[in-house]
Amino acid sequence: MKTLVFCAGAKDPNLSVLQQISSDLLIGVDRGASTLVAHGYTPDYAIGDFDSSEPPEQCRHVIRLPTDKDDTDLEVALLSVCERVGEENISQIIIVGALGAGRLDHLLTNIWLAHQPRFVPYLHKIRMVEANSITRFFGAGEHVWLHEADKKYVSFIGLTPIKKLSIKGVKYPVEAKDYPSPVALVSNECLGSMIRFSLEEGILCVVQSND
Amino acid sequence: MKTLVFCAGAKDPNLSVLQQISSDLLIGVDRGASTLVAHGYTPDYAIGDFDSSEPPEQCRHVIRLPTDKDDTDLEVALLSVCERVGEENISQIIIVGALGAGRLDHLLTNIWLAHQPRFVPYLHKIRMVEANSITRFFGAGEHVWLHEADKKYVSFIGLTPIKKLSIKGVKYPVEAKDYPSPVALVSNECLGSMIRFSLEEGILCVVQSND
Repeated sequence: MKTLVFCAGAKDPNLSVLQQISSDLLIGVDRGASTLVAHGYTPDYAIGDFDSSEPPEQCRHVIRLPTDKDDTDLEVALLSVCERVGEENISQIIIVGALGAGRLDHLLTNIWLAHQPRFVPYLHKIRMVEANSITRFFGAGEHVWLHEADKKYVSFIGLTPIKKLSIKGVKYPVEAKDYPSPVALVSNECLGSMIRFSLEEGILCVVQSND
Repeated sequence: MKTLVFCAGAKDPNLSVLQQISSDLLIGVDRGASTLVAHGYTPDYAIGDFDSSEPPEQCRHVIRLPTDKDDTDLEVALLSVCERVGEENISQIIIVGALGAGRLDHLLTNIWLAHQPRFVPYLHKIRMVEANSITRFFGAGEHVWLHEADKKYVSFIGLTPIKKLSIKGVKYPVEAKDYPSPVALVSNECLGSMIRFSLEEGILCVVQSND
């Protein structure tokens, strides 16, 4: 089961996560490829339009995209690598540097991946990791997510209207509540080692974070 | 016509905007009150739970909120000040430090203001200003927004499905297109001094930004 790590083009991504996981494929997205190399990593792929920096020579494969395109570099990179590997072979897709300090519109675009039907098969496997947050996406169903010991807060952010949201194992539990507009339930706190929640309909973005 | 400026609790908000506008009311939200004072400003109001820092003595009025509450400090501050001033008397509401580097869930919560029916009357007056971006929200109708000369990019991010979106005055125009899922149309570029766009249904978050 392969773990894919994408380092997106943020200025200062939290690469310490790379020491804690064994990844089968390391992918540098545009400027992210140089960032990986600068920190001593050898990306399997460098993918991007490289309009502001050349891909480093150390990368095993380089996929150069056109500058004028409808999709972002990260979108194309995700799709092309996931198709090569095969959805069923992928256990986790870890993306670092997608939500960090940088352009707000890029940050939102990366969260908006969750709205795109073409990413639905991969959605529950994606973890967006930044220095002080881990973000995941959840559709209808019952979910359990391990509380990250160094993260005090857990926030539940509806990307759509949400039907029958229940949250357990937190300071402010929620019981089968409907939210007809997308809601941001922020700064809840984990009480134990597991966060349990369920929804009947909608897309939920859940963020474990600390200050 | 009053301009209200809210400095939210970001670590390093872009206060240079304060030199370019004449504001009638300057409000420091929680830690933002101290930030304003530290930069030589005297907030008319300091509003927050002040759980991590005391409100500075220099503020004209202090409104202390409970720590345990459903709303964020910024939400309560917005509502309470807007009610005192009266919706019809407010020309602009400028919020600095709401979308900057900090907690991702706080950033999303501040954008999610646009989903809350109670803020609908104020939505078209709100500008969220950061160092490299200005963000506004638009509902159904025809809109014109002046191109900020120092911002190269303009991104159109649907917070909901969008019906009949048209965008003119940009490098990649859009003509009466429906988006059944929330879409992020990012890194468009302004061609002239005005960005003209319209939608028939939905909520649009528009970001002018630079790298």
